[in-house]
Amino acid sequence: MAIKEMSETECRAFLTRAQIGRLACALNDQPYVVPISVVCEEDYIYSFSTIGRKIEWMRKNPKVCVQLDELPAQSRWISVIASGVYQELSVPQFETERAHARKLLDRKSRWWLNAFAERDLKSSEALIDPLFFRIRIQSLTGLEATDIDPNV
Amino acid sequence: MAIKEMSETECRAFLTRAQIGRLACALNDQPYVVPISVVCEEDYIYSFSTIGRKIEWMRKNPKVCVQLDELPAQSRWISVIASGVYQELSVPQFETERAHARKLLDRKSRWWLNAFAERDLKSSEALIDPLFFRIRIQSLTGLEATDIDPNV
Repeated sequence: MAIKEMSETECRAFLTRAQIGRLACALNDQPYVVPISVVCEEDYIYSFSTIGRKIEWMRKNPKVCVQLDELPAQSRWISVIASGVYQELSVPQFETERAHARKLLDRKSRWWLNAFAERDLKSSEALIDPLFFRIRIQSLTGLEATDIDPNV
Repeated sequence: MAIKEMSETECRAFLTRAQIGRLACALNDQPYVVPISVVCEEDYIYSFSTIGRKIEWMRKNPKVCVQLDELPAQSRWISVIASGVYQELSVPQFETERAHARKLLDRKSRWWLNAFAERDLKSSEALIDPLFFRIRIQSLTGLEATDIDPNV
């Protein structure tokens, strides 16, 4: 087994096929991490959420980190880490970007399954619409593990 | 599809079979998240690492969050989030706990595969031993999504 650092081009190629990421945010130096559905396009990672702790925290501190991976085996995996800034796609200011995010997410996943079930869970907030947001990527690093040493 | 909150007992039962977690740490309100191999036992999540950003950051700010999941389908998944405190199992102070961590990790995974490959990657630090640590769990929450509404 060997681990190599991925180039930015390799990281970006991986992001185009990623569908799930783990989003970390922080408030008063307490980190918090949750899985999110994602679609990555150019310098952005698009996602959605209902209101909850992560949205409240990212509104207060927009610095975030998203980790995305494929872990088919213990000695064969890819892990990419994107650090960036949270941007809420609220209307009317981001109407175009919000529609774009929704279109991208519609194509890749039945994202609304989770959104609607979460809304049912929080029954007191039954009428809250899912909220769309994106992360503007500022730095991107990745590691790839392979069974065979690529230098041999 | 329905999402329900898991009880603490259900969360703990899930942790006993978890082998991978996503560990989030933070410094100056910048979060950072990486995948780690884990073994959970009672109030602790045990893992290891070579020296790197996450260890440096957790030494400065021991508040961490670990997310662990099983995502077999988009409408059927479990996600557990443990917040807690980083504790480095350094010798001689934590010699017993370090040996215990190593024994637990040996049983569950070939953890040293990653550790040795990471050490090769950082060739300038070729002689650094992997470092064992544990997270003392302070709070535990979980969500479980099922295809069928359990209330029907």
